[in-house]
Amino acid sequence: MVVVMGTDATSEQVDAVVARVVDSGGDAFVSRGVSRTIIGLVGDVDQFHTLDLRGMPGVTDVVRISAPYKLVSRQHHAQMTTVFVGDARVPIGPDTFTLAAGPCAVETPEQTLEAAHMARAAGATLLRGGAYKPRTSPYAFQGLGEAGLRILADVRLETGLPIVTEVVDAHDVELVASYADMLQIGTRNAQNFALLQAAGEVGKPVLLKRGMTATIEEWLMAAEYIAQRGNLDIVLCERGIRTFESATRNTLDISAVPVAHDLSHLPVMVDPSHSGGRRDLVVPLSKAAIAVGADGLLVDVHPHPEAALVDGPQALVNGDLRALAQAVRQLPPLFGRRPADEA
Amino acid sequence: MVVVMGTDATSEQVDAVVARVVDSGGDAFVSRGVSRTIIGLVGDVDQFHTLDLRGMPGVTDVVRISAPYKLVSRQHHAQMTTVFVGDARVPIGPDTFTLAAGPCAVETPEQTLEAAHMARAAGATLLRGGAYKPRTSPYAFQGLGEAGLRILADVRLETGLPIVTEVVDAHDVELVASYADMLQIGTRNAQNFALLQAAGEVGKPVLLKRGMTATIEEWLMAAEYIAQRGNLDIVLCERGIRTFESATRNTLDISAVPVAHDLSHLPVMVDPSHSGGRRDLVVPLSKAAIAVGADGLLVDVHPHPEAALVDGPQALVNGDLRALAQAVRQLPPLFGRRPADEA
Amino acid sequence: MVVVMGTDATSEQVDAVVARVVDSGGDAFVSRGVSRTIIGLVGDVDQFHTLDLRGMPGVTDVVRISAPYKLVSRQHHAQMTTVFVGDARVPIGPDTFTLAAGPCAVETPEQTLEAAHMARAAGATLLRGGAYKPRTSPYAFQGLGEAGLRILADVRLETGLPIVTEVVDAHDVELVASYADMLQIGTRNAQNFALLQAAGEVGKPVLLKRGMTATIEEWLMAAEYIAQRGNLDIVLCERGIRTFESATRNTLDISAVPVAHDLSHLPVMVDPSHSGGRRDLVVPLSKAAIAVGADGLLVDVHPHPEAALVDGPQALVNGDLRALAQAVRQLPPLFGRRPADEA
Amino acid sequence: MVVVMGTDATSEQVDAVVARVVDSGGDAFVSRGVSRTIIGLVGDVDQFHTLDLRGMPGVTDVVRISAPYKLVSRQHHAQMTTVFVGDARVPIGPDTFTLAAGPCAVETPEQTLEAAHMARAAGATLLRGGAYKPRTSPYAFQGLGEAGLRILADVRLETGLPIVTEVVDAHDVELVASYADMLQIGTRNAQNFALLQAAGEVGKPVLLKRGMTATIEEWLMAAEYIAQRGNLDIVLCERGIRTFESATRNTLDISAVPVAHDLSHLPVMVDPSHSGGRRDLVVPLSKAAIAVGADGLLVDVHPHPEAALVDGPQALVNGDLRALAQAVRQLPPLFGRRPADEA
Repeated sequence: MVVVMGTDATSEQVDAVVARVVDSGGDAFVSRGVSRTIIGLVGDVDQFHTLDLRGMPGVTDVVRISAPYKLVSRQHHAQMTTVFVGDARVPIGPDTFTLAAGPCAVETPEQTLEAAHMARAAGATLLRGGAYKPRTSPYAFQGLGEAGLRILADVRLETGLPIVTEVVDAHDVELVASYADMLQIGTRNAQNFALLQAAGEVGKPVLLKRGMTATIEEWLMAAEYIAQRGNLDIVLCERGIRTFESATRNTLDISAVPVAHDLSHLPVMVDPSHSGGRRDLVVPLSKAAIAVGADGLLVDVHPHPEAALVDGPQALVNGDLRALAQAVRQLPPLFGRRPADEA
Repeated sequence: MVVVMGTDATSEQVDAVVARVVDSGGDAFVSRGVSRTIIGLVGDVDQFHTLDLRGMPGVTDVVRISAPYKLVSRQHHAQMTTVFVGDARVPIGPDTFTLAAGPCAVETPEQTLEAAHMARAAGATLLRGGAYKPRTSPYAFQGLGEAGLRILADVRLETGLPIVTEVVDAHDVELVASYADMLQIGTRNAQNFALLQAAGEVGKPVLLKRGMTATIEEWLMAAEYIAQRGNLDIVLCERGIRTFESATRNTLDISAVPVAHDLSHLPVMVDPSHSGGRRDLVVPLSKAAIAVGADGLLVDVHPHPEAALVDGPQALVNGDLRALAQAVRQLPPLFGRRPADEA
Repeated sequence: MVVVMGTDATSEQVDAVVARVVDSGGDAFVSRGVSRTIIGLVGDVDQFHTLDLRGMPGVTDVVRISAPYKLVSRQHHAQMTTVFVGDARVPIGPDTFTLAAGPCAVETPEQTLEAAHMARAAGATLLRGGAYKPRTSPYAFQGLGEAGLRILADVRLETGLPIVTEVVDAHDVELVASYADMLQIGTRNAQNFALLQAAGEVGKPVLLKRGMTATIEEWLMAAEYIAQRGNLDIVLCERGIRTFESATRNTLDISAVPVAHDLSHLPVMVDPSHSGGRRDLVVPLSKAAIAVGADGLLVDVHPHPEAALVDGPQALVNGDLRALAQAVRQLPPLFGRRPADEA
Repeated sequence: MVVVMGTDATSEQVDAVVARVVDSGGDAFVSRGVSRTIIGLVGDVDQFHTLDLRGMPGVTDVVRISAPYKLVSRQHHAQMTTVFVGDARVPIGPDTFTLAAGPCAVETPEQTLEAAHMARAAGATLLRGGAYKPRTSPYAFQGLGEAGLRILADVRLETGLPIVTEVVDAHDVELVASYADMLQIGTRNAQNFALLQAAGEVGKPVLLKRGMTATIEEWLMAAEYIAQRGNLDIVLCERGIRTFESATRNTLDISAVPVAHDLSHLPVMVDPSHSGGRRDLVVPLSKAAIAVGADGLLVDVHPHPEAALVDGPQALVNGDLRALAQAVRQLPPLFGRRPADEA
């Protein structure tokens, strides 16, 4: 059950609805969007019907929804969401095209700064980089941890680029959020519900990658876990699914972009680097992502891919990076969007 | 083992090579390309080495190749192939963007003609339409057979559009080829080797759909079956693969386009209609296909989709069709190609 | 629509029903089972309702069924089918456990005879062996063709074992059936509808392998294509499906056995050789197949696997073969079945 | 790099190795098995080579291994592991067959006690039941949490059955371990590395379910994360993988049992309830699991499946449960194992 507040509802009116629900034994989760606030109710629906919520001040509608996700659905939120990241308020949404680029893993201050300069030169307005790396093998490099976060913060100071970085454990969320402008939740944690809930409570935008074997519905349900804790600043990121095809690391599900846009008001980005796992596919897949209607890209760049500790074979450098830069400047206007670095 | 003939090799020189191979107990398959002829050898490789083929007149090179496909590979055929269809010699290749459109199944002369007019208005230069329909259920409509081929031929006469139509049985190949300008081999026959071989012998271009569960390598090997019988006029068509995702009928493997272009000199088209199985996805997926570098599209249109006997829910009509027409006229030039109907 | 004839219906009564349906413009396919005859109707259902088929002599019931398969369904045929193969009438059905074994490909008379002796020693009552091999690569060994069929016939004469052998082209069905006791349709032809129909018309039992990417429903529909042409002597064979797991060649879908038994009256065998693609898995998977309720096994054996032209790594020999022999003798009685060679 | 200690190595000798590694800047993880202790090293391999570890007292071997998993591999640990659970020291290993049964979710004390009695009557020697339920939807019942753990502890007191229960968050591990005899890690957390590491440190055996889309190698790597933190008391549990087949909830990968046994010394159980998701498949799949060589089963039972809050359609009751009881008593001895409740 969802309570839709009016566009001019006050905080007091929202609080009053929450109080009435909680007093009756239910739980209420407030999701403040740009244009309106939605309150998701969890508990005994029949009990809620006795509360006369529809009659309370500021309430526009009370909806009993059977769809498995509610807060992230377009059903009651037709207008597409724009998420703003960092002090620079970099927009990700329907009018713009946003490039987030950077090294897969933060290794050294020099490598990170150099990658950031490369990213900005390519049109990036967000810096991506991992300090915590979830790795299939316990013997693989797991990231620098907080030291990596400090490097990212220094590079932000130097370049002005807001930071997108991954968090892999619910109990690191506050720490990571104290450095990051946007939290990334990776494909292996797509059903780590404790992490999703923690990310929903910390007050920073979240970039939610699709589980490599998640259906689009499961992906939206994962987003619902975040939204339910009061955070609607969520950007979905398609990054390839696991199939029988082995020519590519994963199979980019390009259809997921229009399908997710049809079902949800959240922005959708595409990660062409992890989808293909091959440098030579990044530019063609980026062009396809722009053409299909994605709201942005998440791309690996590295000054010295041959020495990268993680995912070097897919990181862009030199010529490929210039081709990407050209694509993200020239193509988005043809599809009704401001280019990446004018976003 | 493959014998590469020089660009000015004569038929007699080719025949001489074939004769020497056959006399030694092997098989030789001649593939005449636009610029040169290649002869694939099957049999005892050690025996072939004793034949001194390299010393024969007209022979440029003799190559022992370990790749599972040879004739369709770019390894010995770096230049991309352009396939020409019909008397109108409609090109499908690297410089153009070609739209083949029409009804999934030929039902009546009126429906087919009307669909053909719609197709041409949208920029199509080829008419697609099925007279033989392979259907999962034996109780489903299986197509009109030769009566459908006659309808297609009549509509070609009326509209000038060359015909692409499916053949499902090796022993129908000659009949279908007597009507069609291009034979289509469907996803369920991707490893029907008898059919592939028959299609390779009949002298018409072939549109080879990817098996819904074929790897890219298996798809190229299927093409190799056709090529080995002397026909290199093959166009690959990506049409979605089977995955766990059920929001779409299949998962369009958009990466397959650049991957196939990297491995093979054959043109690659995309079928956005069967990939998604949803009308609302056809235009966005078509745009993605153009942007990623496909050489053309295969699209279902139907004058009355609600009454279509096969696959109505994905057929374009009216507004969607106009959006498609706009995309195939405006976008290809931005990616270095002549638009669909100027091809 | 299906017409169910009484157990004592005469041929004339069946013919009369067929005639009335055909006169009305429809098609009728007669399936004679052990206990009763069923007539499948294809055409205009409303038209059929006007024919008063239910009132005709010998007719027990006329059923309009919405399930996609009818003749192979248990809905109107609750009793499980036993299929009998060859002059020896080797049974495959609910009371027995049947082992079909032999070389993947027929290579020489000696190899085939030796493999047949190995098979019989292991408890096999059917000899499997391929004369026509569908191969992913056109450069791989494709089988001996009719020469291979003659070898199989000679070995049958020598050993008394009925022959199961694959047919890959609709137009070879008569030829293959003139040698074989049971036709095998392989995984790559699971939706080669022309082949399925031809196999349904030739009057020999059919072993129908599941498509490596076919759902159980699609597999039963493929069987329906055979049944619809009048042949209910069909044995289903689970042989592994394509998944992301690469430790095995395919993933044996062991659940498919009870699921298919629940939906269909047809016997279900398991091919542990092609499922796993590894010799060391054949015996454990065979035991699992017996325990889960399969009606038989299809196993590769080869006297000299290291020299096999096709699929040597999975062929049993020596110790493994003795372990298989022990399993197929000792286990079936524990699950209510007569062992393989007492079947 | 792995240091293999002799069977009579003392704790002091182990500590000395660890100290030398740590002093050199590396990390060392001690895994004490039944027969011997193994120390996994993480860090600079070249540096480790300078430490002369092989010359230290108690050290048998120092091995540089390239396999992605080491501690759980059979390469250096040929003998199969038996894991003992609870004060009753219930064995799970190569000589026994162990049944863990109980309700999918703990709902009430009565339901849990009743299910425990059913489980024990069926031959179970371990009680399974979830207090923390990871659910795809945030609106679904998420389990009773610590209240559920208390119910399980009460039922253990009443029935004597050790408890297997799931933990979903790294920071709940200590709490759950304070109640449970064995920690279960579920399919959605198969790559939640923080949780795996925490479970490796708490000193209780771990039941590690395969990720629904994990390869066998990834599953063993997940086990390696647990082992690396010093816990080799790990039981693998195959529970079905995600495929295109929709007749079953997941596809039980029965081959994974012998494949995992071939690669790893850890016991392997099978969960036939979540694999099939259908009550009628539980008994046949259980029989297949016993026959293929599994070390035990994990089965859902519920006194009133129709009222179950989670997964009622697959819970056993009455007749099916008696059939299961019969199978787990009669079949294991035929495959060289003591039956479930004599284990």
